[in-house]
This record gives sequence, structure tokens and C-alpha cells, in this order.
Amino acid sequence: MSVAVVNTALVGVHIGRVEGCNASRTDDVLAVEEPLEIRLGDRSLSITMRTPGNDFELAAGFLHSEGMIADGGQILSMGRPADGAEDIVVVELNGEPRVPVQPQRNFVMTSACGVCGKASLQDLEVNACPVLQPDDIRLSPQTLHGLPDALRRAQSVFDSTGGLHAAARFSLQGELECLREDIGRHNAVDKLIGAALLGDSPGERMPMSESILLVSGRASFELVQKALVAGIPVMAAVGAPSSLAVATAERSGMTLIGFLRNGRFNVYTGSHRIVGL
Amino acid sequence: MSVAVVNTALVGVHIGRVEGCNASRTDDVLAVEEPLEIRLGDRSLSITMRTPGNDFELAAGFLHSEGMIADGGQILSMGRPADGAEDIVVVELNGEPRVPVQPQRNFVMTSACGVCGKASLQDLEVNACPVLQPDDIRLSPQTLHGLPDALRRAQSVFDSTGGLHAAARFSLQGELECLREDIGRHNAVDKLIGAALLGDSPGERMPMSESILLVSGRASFELVQKALVAGIPVMAAVGAPSSLAVATAERSGMTLIGFLRNGRFNVYTGSHRIVGL
Repeated sequence: MSVAVVNTALVGVHIGRVEGCNASRTDDVLAVEEPLEIRLGDRSLSITMRTPGNDFELAAGFLHSEGMIADGGQILSMGRPADGAEDIVVVELNGEPRVPVQPQRNFVMTSACGVCGKASLQDLEVNACPVLQPDDIRLSPQTLHGLPDALRRAQSVFDSTGGLHAAARFSLQGELECLREDIGRHNAVDKLIGAALLGDSPGERMPMSESILLVSGRASFELVQKALVAGIPVMAAVGAPSSLAVATAERSGMTLIGFLRNGRFNVYTGSHRIVGL
Repeated sequence: MSVAVVNTALVGVHIGRVEGCNASRTDDVLAVEEPLEIRLGDRSLSITMRTPGNDFELAAGFLHSEGMIADGGQILSMGRPADGAEDIVVVELNGEPRVPVQPQRNFVMTSACGVCGKASLQDLEVNACPVLQPDDIRLSPQTLHGLPDALRRAQSVFDSTGGLHAAARFSLQGELECLREDIGRHNAVDKLIGAALLGDSPGERMPMSESILLVSGRASFELVQKALVAGIPVMAAVGAPSSLAVATAERSGMTLIGFLRNGRFNVYTGSHRIVGL
């Protein structure tokens, strides 16, 4: 294995390739997975295995998903530590976090993790998902059918490595407004939400109450939870949802769609927002 | 959404289905995602989002991956708490765990998480992966090409929901010896390793030094790490590996294979074990 850096999200490698009985050597590209430590002031809050890039958005989205900030205005500053380490983000807040940082909330999130840091089953229940406000959103099947193609067209990295998850924000008219990629599906969603918290261009701002979230993989509990905390009323996944994802979406009034591909999809909850159902 | 329990791993739901512009109602099946708390004596060690079933294996594999036990003989007993709660496993060890349980090691693992619980970047490095012992394993491409089909034939749940990851143990001759499924890919691997720790039937025992591990999804850092701690010399993934997975496998002398499907695969590290490379 020889390694060459293509950009911060990709790395080139020299590999063996076998097709049938024929073996050869060739160059290939991998998605980068590296740890990032998120600090709140001088204390370590979490470590996540992430794909470098949009680290500040990732940190902002993580703090939001964990309930520590309600909006970007609560962030006083974000930066690197004094030694400039690229694997650490230091966040300073205006005042205290909305949810206290507990001693046992230090944790590692791997590239596929999400809501780490609760110390007991009770904590999971205490951090219940919010209930969405009523709305009169109605989406046509045609609008939804078009989302996966728009996602694929916009993905700059996924197709070249097969190793990155994508999260995309669409308008209710099906226009792609923001896209983020990461080796961790939860990170892709945190980056997308962080972009809304930190951004100021139209379509990348909070609130997300008139947005559709599309994720390239499966819909798990933690992704639904992050979307709900951000006030997203409609979430669609290219893959399958879990039982707890469906139960959480149902309880909070979210429309949860799965297997959105090839002109088909399943509506698990909130079907009143889909024309024809 | 109406819900009917099919078994502990599956749940039936009534959903809306849209094909093109045609909407209808139908029955479908979801993979179950529910929290499991693992206790060491009277202290809560972790919470993982898992698919119910093989909970004791999951707990044993988790303790092994975290370095707390070296073999199944260190487990004095495993059971449910006094109230019989099905979402808790209580483990009693013979003596102290090999790695001390730190106050901040309480954490939640979601359905997609893996090596949670380290409190800092330094901890990640301290828990370095072991280096595999030298071996003279040589695998033919034909042996490897046959593994994904054998996995699919044996999977009882995956095809019906699209929501479960699988981890399988094969002999060096390509015979399927053990298979476990879970909504979390790390749990599927922990269950597989736990089966070896607790089991006593041939092909399901420790050591795993003459085994091939096949995972149905991608190969991330944490999966490679778990396999290395279990002494597995060859790991293959149907999907892509990450940069850190490749670097970790390289450092430890493991053969890491990716994109194993349709008569093709890539060899990222340890190609000396593959005939023809």
C-alpha cells in the first residue's frame, strides 16, 4: 500500500485487484476517516471519526443535535487550538450550554455513530425528541422521485470511492439547497445542520421547517432524532428505516420515507403530507 | 402505522407505497432497533442500539473488543437483572477486567457505532491494535469469490427488510461456520466474536486465527479493530474500506479486502495471502 493525498476527503492507494482469476495492480481512491475532537472551551466533549472538511459545521451541528445550542448565535467563536492541530475544534459559547455537560459525556463517536454520550437508558428517554409544529406541507410523488438523481448528480466524492454517506437538504419544490458528505452518516447530517446554523445564504439558513432531508443510506433512530431536533418535517432515505426510527418519527409527527429510488418509495409515517395517500 | 411483532428481530408495519404516481397501502417488515444496556456487576458499562437476539454473545464480544476480557473463561455468569428486564445484560467476571472501567466510559452506542467510550485522542492511540502472529495462509481467488453468495444464502432476515448488517465467519476453505445479523454493523461483529467466546461447537470457537471475516457493508476502523483484537487474519467487506481501516490493517499485518462481489475484489493490505498477488 502506498498512499498519496488527493484532497482532505480522499486519499490515493495502490492496491491489488482480482477479477475472476486475473490479479493485477492498480491505483484506487479511499474515503478518509480520521478522528476529530470537539472541545467546549477547555474541556473535551467528544471524538468523532469523520472525513476532514466542514469541521466547524460538524461541531455546530453536533452541539445542536445534542441540545447544547438552539441556534448559531449562541456560538461566540470556533477555531483550532493554539498549536493549530487540525484534528481539534474549540468552541466558545455565549454563556452556558442549554444542556449541562456531564462528567460522563466524554466519548468517542466512530464513523458510523450518532447519539453517544448518554449514560443510561433513562438518559435516552429524558432526551426525548420534540414534536413538530403543525404545517400544511403537501408533496407530490414526482417531487420525491426526483431527489435521489439530484443527490447523485451533486455528489462529488461518493461515486469515486463508494465510501461516503451523503445528506442533502431540498426545498419543498425539490430543489437541492445544500449537500454534505462524510464517512459517518451522522456526521453528514450534523454537517448539513451545522451549515444551516452557521450559514447565511438563502436555502442554507435555519429554520429547516420547510426542508426535506435526504440521506443516502438507511434511516436509523439517531438520524431521525437529529432531523427532529432541527425541526425538519420530511425525511427520506435511499435505504431502509429501523423500527425505532419509524416509532420516533411517528411520535413526533414527521413524514418518514424509505427505499426512495427507481421511481418508488415507502411512506412509513406522516403520509398526510404525501399527495395520493 | 400499525405494528405487529413478527419475531424479536423483525416487526410488521402497515405502510403507504408509491410506485410512479400510484399510491397504495400494504404490509411491510422492519428490522428492530432497541437499546441494550450492558452492565458489569452493578455498574452500567454501555448502551448499544441493537437488534434483539444473541444479547449474551453481543455483551461477550463487546467486552472482548474493548479489551476487558481475553477469553470466555473470564466470564463467571451472564444474565438479566432481578426484574427480568430484556433490555439489560448483567455480566459477572472472574476477577477484575483486564482494562479498568473508567468513570467516563459510560456511553451509548447507536445502531451504527463501534468503539465509543474513549475520552480523548490519546486514549484512541493507547488502545492500539495488536499485531497478528505470522502465518502461512494462502487463499485462492475462487475461495473468496464464493463467500458473498454463501452469506446471502444463509441470511434469514436481511433480504426481507434490507435493514440488517451481517457478519460471517468462514474457514480458510470458504465454508460458512457462523453468521450473525444486527441493525448495527459493529454489533453483528461483536455477536460473531461473542459466539466464538461462548460457543463450544467446532467452527464457532476461539481462536479465530484460521478464520475469514466477511461483513455485508463497508469496512471501517472500528470493525478492523474488533477483528484484530479477535486475531482474525483476513477480513473482507462487500463495500468500501476507509483510509483508517486500511492503515490499521496494514500496521497489524491483516489482509483487508473490499468490494468483494460479482467475481471481483480489491486487496488493500496483506496481499501476500492471496494467490496470484
